[in-house]
Amino acid sequence: MKNLKVPFSPIRFSRNTLYLLDQRKLPNHEVWVPCRSSRAVWKAIRTMVVRGAPAIGVAAGYGLYLGIRSFKGDPKDFCTRLVQEARYLDSSRPTARNLAYAVERIIQKVCVSKEKSVPKLKQQVLEEAERIHNEDIQICRKIGQYGSALFRKGNTILTHCNAGGLATSGYGTALAVFYALKEKKIPFSVYVDETRPLLQGARLTAWELFKSKIPATLICDNMAASLMHAGKIDGVVVGADRIAMNGDTANKIGTYGVAVLAKVHGIPFYIAAPSTTFDLKAKTGKDIPIEERPHHEVSEMHGKRLAPKGMKVFNPSFDVTPHPYISGIITEAGVLKAPFQHSIKKIQTLLKK
Amino acid sequence: MKNLKVPFSPIRFSRNTLYLLDQRKLPNHEVWVPCRSSRAVWKAIRTMVVRGAPAIGVAAGYGLYLGIRSFKGDPKDFCTRLVQEARYLDSSRPTARNLAYAVERIIQKVCVSKEKSVPKLKQQVLEEAERIHNEDIQICRKIGQYGSALFRKGNTILTHCNAGGLATSGYGTALAVFYALKEKKIPFSVYVDETRPLLQGARLTAWELFKSKIPATLICDNMAASLMHAGKIDGVVVGADRIAMNGDTANKIGTYGVAVLAKVHGIPFYIAAPSTTFDLKAKTGKDIPIEERPHHEVSEMHGKRLAPKGMKVFNPSFDVTPHPYISGIITEAGVLKAPFQHSIKKIQTLLKK
Repeated sequence: MKNLKVPFSPIRFSRNTLYLLDQRKLPNHEVWVPCRSSRAVWKAIRTMVVRGAPAIGVAAGYGLYLGIRSFKGDPKDFCTRLVQEARYLDSSRPTARNLAYAVERIIQKVCVSKEKSVPKLKQQVLEEAERIHNEDIQICRKIGQYGSALFRKGNTILTHCNAGGLATSGYGTALAVFYALKEKKIPFSVYVDETRPLLQGARLTAWELFKSKIPATLICDNMAASLMHAGKIDGVVVGADRIAMNGDTANKIGTYGVAVLAKVHGIPFYIAAPSTTFDLKAKTGKDIPIEERPHHEVSEMHGKRLAPKGMKVFNPSFDVTPHPYISGIITEAGVLKAPFQHSIKKIQTLLKK
Repeated sequence: MKNLKVPFSPIRFSRNTLYLLDQRKLPNHEVWVPCRSSRAVWKAIRTMVVRGAPAIGVAAGYGLYLGIRSFKGDPKDFCTRLVQEARYLDSSRPTARNLAYAVERIIQKVCVSKEKSVPKLKQQVLEEAERIHNEDIQICRKIGQYGSALFRKGNTILTHCNAGGLATSGYGTALAVFYALKEKKIPFSVYVDETRPLLQGARLTAWELFKSKIPATLICDNMAASLMHAGKIDGVVVGADRIAMNGDTANKIGTYGVAVLAKVHGIPFYIAAPSTTFDLKAKTGKDIPIEERPHHEVSEMHGKRLAPKGMKVFNPSFDVTPHPYISGIITEAGVLKAPFQHSIKKIQTLLKK
């Protein structure tokens, strides 16, 4: 199966090796990390070589294949092993919904099949992983189409973190909106929150937009409020790591603050995410686990201390934006509006058909 | 004149030399920069060896003395030269009100005196600079007394940037509140915004509180909103660089966002500042000049790029918090409440007596 073309992609699979663009080294170095086992994929997800919920999902799909590629047992044990590998991969990061989605989808596909040949079962796993990969690109394009219709000539749009090509298989979710606006030749500009502590905005979103010649200005996270007050922001678009069934959305830490500030200043605030980000098991944001990451991410940079040694640090990786702050959720099937309980259910039914 | 004792001070004047603790090198190195001319003081203020509005004011006072120390002309030209030096020092940074206050105060004192001896005029300049220095410490103690009465046992208080001993002559404004609470043996804890781009929270406030054994936790600026949402913040106290006569307050970039978020979450938001921070000429926040600082402060750290080369950056150093977001202004004469137009005028009259 050949992958669809995208301007750039952080994920490549070839000859039983998953190549991941090491996003920790951007924008200064473009280094590809080869992963030849599920263990290597697990580590790449955990240490954020690959990040962004959709990209994590795609990587996990291939990781599952790499995990069962060497399976030599009885065909009837294949599924048990597949589930073990899936659980293992799912333990790499707790918040991104798309990770669980990808491995669950492969299990469902393969474990219900009547196939008895182990090589053919393995082939089914790989094909489903490739299908998830290609669908991700198509989904991102559709998000771009729907999202770009929300903006007008001359608009200035704020984004937080990186929900770009680098967070997906190559076109992005929030950034798909920008790529689509550019393709439609609608002039617009972007403010990019640098997104502490790991600076995905400064390092990744800035890199993508700069490469794509989209006019963009980098700011520190704490500068967005005064830009909003000065009337310089017409809309906000961010990605999502997991969306509860009432619309509550987990995304990169800082998203909630941006959403509240947008509401206070009367600025529309949009989530852009594939429908795979919805978590049927999460009724509200309270059901979404929030990952806490190592303290040194906040207190050190380039191996140097930014804060005194021994200083206590709190480093949650995500926050939850309650649905009343969300003007719309841009998906591959259209822009969902409140009440989200209904619009999310509707879209789920629609997409199953 | 001997200086009052403080736990630690970033400013020392001895034998015609102003020693400034280089705050750019904290928390890793404690380096003192000796300044022997007004030019050296100007540069130290501009490059942020010394920072924090009250500390800048105190440093500028001594800078003025160093500027006229070598004056050898006619006594009647002394004042002209003093005003020139004052203008020069005032040009080092545009937002801090206390800078202008200190040099204007010295000019008023010296230029109205009937003293005809140049050495004695110089002595008057030095003595007034020392008086400003000592008063700053006394003022900070009073701010601590008034501010600490606003909090209760077990409270958790958020602060932004560094309005601490390092921003003043040694006790702080916002942090004076914390030192006073500690002296009163009232248990409390603090969350410290790291305060991008120059990380005055992580480097300076964290250093002060850690040194003073006040329980404090460092967070990135974009994490405060979710802590507020989780009910973990009982109040916010920050400093000020300039306060307009209607209460609108210029402070470190990000303050406005914190103030809006505090209001939305029903959390009291206090400014702590000496009365010298009020600008009689600024009717509202619109009359306060906002400094824009170099782009590399945002796009580089430790000489390494955080964003792609050529990326556009916006780096305002301050923002203005409109008065409706301010629950009170803690000054050396008490806590001012809305309507601030009246309470600020009242305090000005009171302090003149």
